[in-house]
Amino acid sequence: MKKIVRCGVSMGKKLLEDFDELISRKGYTNRSEAVRDLIRNHLVEEEWRTEKKEMIGTITLVYDHHIRGLLDTLTDLQHHSHDMIKSTMHLHLDEDNCLEILAVKGTVDKIKAIADKLISVRGVKHGKLTMTTTGKELL
Amino acid sequence: MKKIVRCGVSMGKKLLEDFDELISRKGYTNRSEAVRDLIRNHLVEEEWRTEKKEMIGTITLVYDHHIRGLLDTLTDLQHHSHDMIKSTMHLHLDEDNCLEILAVKGTVDKIKAIADKLISVRGVKHGKLTMTTTGKELL
Amino acid sequence: MKKIVRCGVSMGKKLLEDFDELISRKGYTNRSEAVRDLIRNHLVEEEWRTEKKEMIGTITLVYDHHIRGLLDTLTDLQHHSHDMIKSTMHLHLDEDNCLEILAVKGTVDKIKAIADKLISVRGVKHGKLTMTTTGKELL
Amino acid sequence: MKKIVRCGVSMGKKLLEDFDELISRKGYTNRSEAVRDLIRNHLVEEEWRTEKKEMIGTITLVYDHHIRGLLDTLTDLQHHSHDMIKSTMHLHLDEDNCLEILAVKGTVDKIKAIADKLISVRGVKHGKLTMTTTGKELL
Repeated sequence: MKKIVRCGVSMGKKLLEDFDELISRKGYTNRSEAVRDLIRNHLVEEEWRTEKKEMIGTITLVYDHHIRGLLDTLTDLQHHSHDMIKSTMHLHLDEDNCLEILAVKGTVDKIKAIADKLISVRGVKHGKLTMTTTGKELL
Repeated sequence: MKKIVRCGVSMGKKLLEDFDELISRKGYTNRSEAVRDLIRNHLVEEEWRTEKKEMIGTITLVYDHHIRGLLDTLTDLQHHSHDMIKSTMHLHLDEDNCLEILAVKGTVDKIKAIADKLISVRGVKHGKLTMTTTGKELL
Repeated sequence: MKKIVRCGVSMGKKLLEDFDELISRKGYTNRSEAVRDLIRNHLVEEEWRTEKKEMIGTITLVYDHHIRGLLDTLTDLQHHSHDMIKSTMHLHLDEDNCLEILAVKGTVDKIKAIADKLISVRGVKHGKLTMTTTGKELL
Repeated sequence: MKKIVRCGVSMGKKLLEDFDELISRKGYTNRSEAVRDLIRNHLVEEEWRTEKKEMIGTITLVYDHHIRGLLDTLTDLQHHSHDMIKSTMHLHLDEDNCLEILAVKGTVDKIKAIADKLISVRGVKHGKLTMTTTGKELL
């Protein structure tokens, strides 16, 4: 069981009111949760600066599947890193365009390298790496 | 068939060399593709400023499935927007932690609103909205 | 005098320890201040989404002063918005390169427009808009 | 004299039209300049990943000068790094709030460290590091 502690934070009344208003607009029903989210987000950002830290990334690709050789190249690249790519999801956006999302687990430097490789493939119109976490240390 | 045009870009020799070196390190085999990627990325960023533009977003959530009520809340929220959430992918990261990725299609303001709601749920440790495109206009 | 309130935030012991370690590395001597900084930063980001909100921005430009017409263009543009540009700082980086920093006060849409105009001038090698605040409402 | 080269970039007609429309809205009168800006921006982002690279940063601080000890702390910290802080600009925003902008030259790791220290001072309401360049290599 994880141990819960409680800490006090002091701030100006106006600052707290503004924060409460913003988070309730975003859907928070609990101020502690909103503060924890800010803290966890800050920690995850820091972890992504450490090259050898194991993290989770998601790679989002939008591409035109008609481009000759594209599907083969993407498949080859993915198989080359099959141990890191945990799962993929594919959506047919329209006649031409595909959305592919990959969940990747590995060290920061390796996740970035595979994202660079996939995004740079000719025919990939838009690609992005989203940096998230294994959640393990965010207790 | 889409029409291809060719435009000339002039720049310092050193700048071009540095660019070529960077993109080859990233995996590009073609300079035009690297320039197109910069241009498309710039256009997609702009499109996300228009509230009523139809775009694609992916929402990445990491959460502890043991938190009481969490799964129900996430499921309810998703069903409430079932017409926008095109597909989801779920990974069991470890005994406690889940990775869930949602592909969402809709207007910018609606995608942001649903991302805010999901990310603010108590028990979601980390959440992010990735802004991408339907690809339709990026010809 | 501004009224100070105190609120309690509960979280996992491990999360608090990780946060304490990160902020002490960054130089914080006080946990409340670190939480307030996260909150204020979150609020300022939101304020920049409102086009008619009065904010402060700083525009950073690096340019080669040898480019013909560059200094005239930058000066003209600045005078055209002289009521918004509160102060400027200029540094001679080397024989060729200048760093110019402008402090700009105005509504979000106007600050963005003047930043776009200055950054797009031919000869400006690098330009950035930094979004900050008048501080008035961050009590 | 720097050597100018010209390279050809091919792309879809629609993509080029959309790009032209966006950059003209931003104030560009020259397409090459817009492409060069995208390229230079991409290069500068990469340079900031190298800890020992000499770069220019600007640190923007908004603070309430009434906070006891704040001015002394900020001054002490700045003098401690006087060799890196090339110039500062100070604006009296209102009765309480100050805007201070520092131009800092040094290696990436050192600029980040001094920014962290200044931003974490109690009483600094908002602080940001803007990453720019010496311009030397952007020919």
